[in-house]
Order: sequence, then C-alpha cells, then structure tokens
Amino acid sequence: MNHVPTREDLLQAHERIKSFVHQTSVMTSSSIDILAGCCIFFKCENFQKVGAFKARGAMNAILSLSEEDRKKGVATHSSGNHAQALARAAKIMGVKSYIVMPSNAPEVKKKGVRAFGGEITECEPTLEARESTLAKVITETGATEIHPFNNYDVIAGQATAAIELFDDTEGLDFVLVPVGGGGLLSGTLLAAKYFSPKTKVIAGEPSGADDTYRALQSGRIEKSQANSVADGLLTSLGDKTFPLIKEMVSEVITVSDKEIIEAMRLIWERVKIIVEPSCAVPFAAVLKEKKKFSGKKIGIILSGGNVDLERAFKLFESI
Amino acid sequence: MNHVPTREDLLQAHERIKSFVHQTSVMTSSSIDILAGCCIFFKCENFQKVGAFKARGAMNAILSLSEEDRKKGVATHSSGNHAQALARAAKIMGVKSYIVMPSNAPEVKKKGVRAFGGEITECEPTLEARESTLAKVITETGATEIHPFNNYDVIAGQATAAIELFDDTEGLDFVLVPVGGGGLLSGTLLAAKYFSPKTKVIAGEPSGADDTYRALQSGRIEKSQANSVADGLLTSLGDKTFPLIKEMVSEVITVSDKEIIEAMRLIWERVKIIVEPSCAVPFAAVLKEKKKFSGKKIGIILSGGNVDLERAFKLFESI
Repeated sequence: MNHVPTREDLLQAHERIKSFVHQTSVMTSSSIDILAGCCIFFKCENFQKVGAFKARGAMNAILSLSEEDRKKGVATHSSGNHAQALARAAKIMGVKSYIVMPSNAPEVKKKGVRAFGGEITECEPTLEARESTLAKVITETGATEIHPFNNYDVIAGQATAAIELFDDTEGLDFVLVPVGGGGLLSGTLLAAKYFSPKTKVIAGEPSGADDTYRALQSGRIEKSQANSVADGLLTSLGDKTFPLIKEMVSEVITVSDKEIIEAMRLIWERVKIIVEPSCAVPFAAVLKEKKKFSGKKIGIILSGGNVDLERAFKLFESI
Repeated sequence: MNHVPTREDLLQAHERIKSFVHQTSVMTSSSIDILAGCCIFFKCENFQKVGAFKARGAMNAILSLSEEDRKKGVATHSSGNHAQALARAAKIMGVKSYIVMPSNAPEVKKKGVRAFGGEITECEPTLEARESTLAKVITETGATEIHPFNNYDVIAGQATAAIELFDDTEGLDFVLVPVGGGGLLSGTLLAAKYFSPKTKVIAGEPSGADDTYRALQSGRIEKSQANSVADGLLTSLGDKTFPLIKEMVSEVITVSDKEIIEAMRLIWERVKIIVEPSCAVPFAAVLKEKKKFSGKKIGIILSGGNVDLERAFKLFESI
C-alpha cells in the first residue's frame, strides 16, 4: 500500500496472515517482576515461524501483492531473519523469491533460505553491492522488492504482534520494542494508536547503533554506527519509518552491549526461553530505567530467538 | 489419600491446585517434527512454578492435609525441585516446611528453599543420613512427611499435567514422560487410563539409572545405579509407584547420556526453550526409536527447566 496503514489496514493484515503465522503466547515470570519492580508481559515472537516477528510482515506483503505481481516473484537483500521470512512466505504462496545475501552471511542463514526454495544471489558485503545486486536481480526478473522495514505492508504485518498483545493483556502502561530499521516499532506505534491509545510506546536501542536516538534530536535520519552485539538492530531508519517514529514514539532508551547481554541472560535463566541479543534490548532498557517503570504494567515484544548457542555462550562468558 | 487415585480424585486434584500453578502451554515445532518424523506436542512444565511439574504434586499434597496437620507443618528430604516446590506450596498456605538437604546440595537450591521460608536441616550426603535426619525432624515437630513421589496425593497432583495435555491435544497415540521415582509416570498413567485410554504411555529412562527398565523384567523394585547426567532421574521406584507402572506402562526406552544431551540441545535450538537434562530424556527416546513413532501423534511432558547455564554449556561441549 502507498499510505500509512489505517486502523482497518491493520485489522485486515491480521486477518490475512492469521492462518500462516503463530499467535504467539504471552509469558510472565514472578522472579523477573520482582527483579524489575514492575509487571512484565513478554510477547514471545522468538517462538514465531522462522524464529522472529519478521514472518508477519513478509507474509502480509506477499499476500497483498496482485496476482500478476506474484507471478514475477519477490526480492530483497537481507542477511538476517527477513531473508528467511520472505522465502518462507513466498514458498507458502507458490511465489518465487530472490534473496541477495552478502558473501559473508552465515552458512546457516543461507541454508535456511534455501530450505524454503529461495534463490540466493551472493554479493560483496557492502550496502552498495547489496543494493546494486538487488537492482540487477529486479531488472532481470521483474520481481517486486519487499524491503525488510521501509514498506507499509511490512509495517502493517509487524503491527499484528502488538495487536495480539493488546488483545491478551489489558491496561498496559507501556510497550517496549527494539528499534533497528523501525518496522516493528512503526507497526507497534500504529497498533497502540488505534487499539490501546493510553499505552506509551518506548523503543530500546543499542548505544552502539543509536541512530534513532540521534535522529529524534536532529530531526533527520541519522547513520547507524552499526557497532553492537545486537546484530538485528544495526540498520538506520527509512523514510517511511522515521516520520511515524518521530510523530508517535514516547522515548528511545539506549543500552550498552553489557546491559544487553545481562538482560538476555536473565531472560534465558528466569523465563527459560532462548532469545537473541537484539531481542533483549527492551528488557535491558526497563532494567536501566527502573524508576520510570516502577509498579507499571509493561508489554515487551520479544522479537526473535535466532542465536547460535556457541555464540550465546561466548557472550555470557564475556561479561 | 490411602488408595490409588480414582478418576474423581484426579479431577478434584486439578480443581484444587488450578489457581496455584500455571496451566502451562503446549508447544510444537515444524522443524522438530520433520527431524523426528512424527508430530510432537510438548507440554511445557519447564515454565511451571519453581520451574518443574513438582509444583503440582506438592501443592495438591498440602491442600489435601487436614487443618490440624497443616498446623504442624510438612517435611521432606530433597536436594532437587521437590524441595522448592514443597516450600513454595507451604508458604502459600501459611504452613511451616522443614526440608532436609544433603550438605553438598548446590547453594542455589538452598537459596530457593529459603526464599519460600523453608527451614533447612543439613545432613551427610547419604540416603541413610537423609532418612534418619528426616525422621528426627518429624519426631520433633510432628510435621507430615510429603514424599517426592511415593505418595498418592503427590501422584494425583502430577497427573494434572497430563490431564491438561489431553484437554489441549486430542488423539495422541503416545505420551512420553521421564521416569525417576515414578511420580510423574504414575500420574500420567492414571490420567491416560481415565481420560485418554487409547493413548499409550511410554517412559524414557537414562541407561545409567535404568532401574525401572530392570524392575519390569525382574518383577521387583531394583536399585538405581544413579549414574547419569539426568540428575532428576537417579532415584529408584517406590512401593506405590512400582505397581502402577508395572500394571500400565507400555514400555520403557533407555537412552545414553550422549543421546540425552543431543536431545536437550535440539530442544534449546529448535523449540527455543530451556530444559534440564532429565527433561530431554523422553524426546531422546523418540529420536532413538524413530520407526516406532513414525507418523504418530506424540505428547511429551517437558518436566523441568532448572539447569545452570554454565553446566548446560559444558554438557553441550562434551559431545
């Protein structure tokens, strides 16, 4: 779609993707609540298909294409969860998917894409090479680009996680989500505006990739330093996500890599679930600003669980 | 109670404890199903209060005591999940709990018991010392012993996990649970008998503590070698659990420590949840006997999630 998603667009997206993604559970933990001094409701998108909320946006984007466009396939460049999410959504709908991946992308990610029949084109690991390779693929195939976050259909899809959270948990004072390119954050902001207007939306961001924090101060999109353990949050905002965030977000709280790893470990130990570093950023933000959240009812969207165990162990050992 | 729990006893137990324990979720994973060649429904007692199904039996036992008995408190010897489960249940009901623990019990377990107001008496780390110390505590206090598994109220409480699993998942061909002392297994057997008689119940047991497997061959209770990484399953059966198991269990499948650790790792990686070694035993049994389970609908009760991350990492590295 070519406009900021309306209330109706969000409801339609939810209806559209419902049978293709998990309605993930909301978990609580008394020991986490005691530790944090507030009531936290974790929306477990780490249990989502392909292990991340990205399954929602990709699914909605493909389901929103015309029959004709579907025939020509979809394309994106991604080394992360969006690549798999798009390949999966395409496979379900019998659509061809072209995924441009940097040559240094982990073998496991490539395998994941191939398992869903995605056609991988490798390129140099620079943003320029990724974009020019993608442009070439699109020229050759006529495929539609499905951007990982700077796309209103994707944003409407990501919004459905918050819709479910609001359905399951009434009276949330805050919802916290991580911010990278801003797809999940934009979707959550719209969902809160339409379905839970009293809930304030706060973003958690790694201090080593705090372009959103800086963008809100400068009033324009800033470049990310891309220097954090939270490898899903290294991108900068897009021209569709930035205005939404600028207009509606309550606050961006930045956290260090050490705070992220500590929060991640607490979620593993206390909630007994596996989350990736990027996913622990909002909880790290709550622990950092305990006073602000004291006694409040807080929703946190746990964005994903795709982390190599060996990598996780090394991170835990590093702090 | 002094008799094998009836259908009505199980329903009452469920009603009784319902508001004090989690109705845990049932999880599925397509990648696990592809790998195992069957449909697996994981009943997540690793998310249960105190991190294990033991919360159910302990709660039912204390709620089943007379007002007069409650005044004198409850007692047990345990170095594991039952200790915390009993202390928690006692605290909720305003009952005093006396827990005999071996002097070498991990500090974190003692802390857990104390956090629920449990009064710890330490003793030498032998079964004899544990039993004699418990006898002394009981003589001095008049407390009622709540045995971790050889107790019909405890068995009825553990049965409620399977009741919920049958409620949530119709048409299971098999249910698999781990067996140590046999409390969870006995409860599951009774629940299947009363509520899902077509479902066969199979036990998973570590080959380094395969006393149940041997007991079914010899026709009498056998001593456990207590030599396995699955530290929750090292005990032998009791005179209340053995007859139930002998009468009703379909089969006991034994698995090596290596198979247990591999299964545990797969659950972490694919289901994205944290389970302790003992908890992975039934899934290891399914992977070992793939042919038997091929294409079937299988319930697995994931018994608990209490494992130190460092210990888990070492186990994963060891194979």
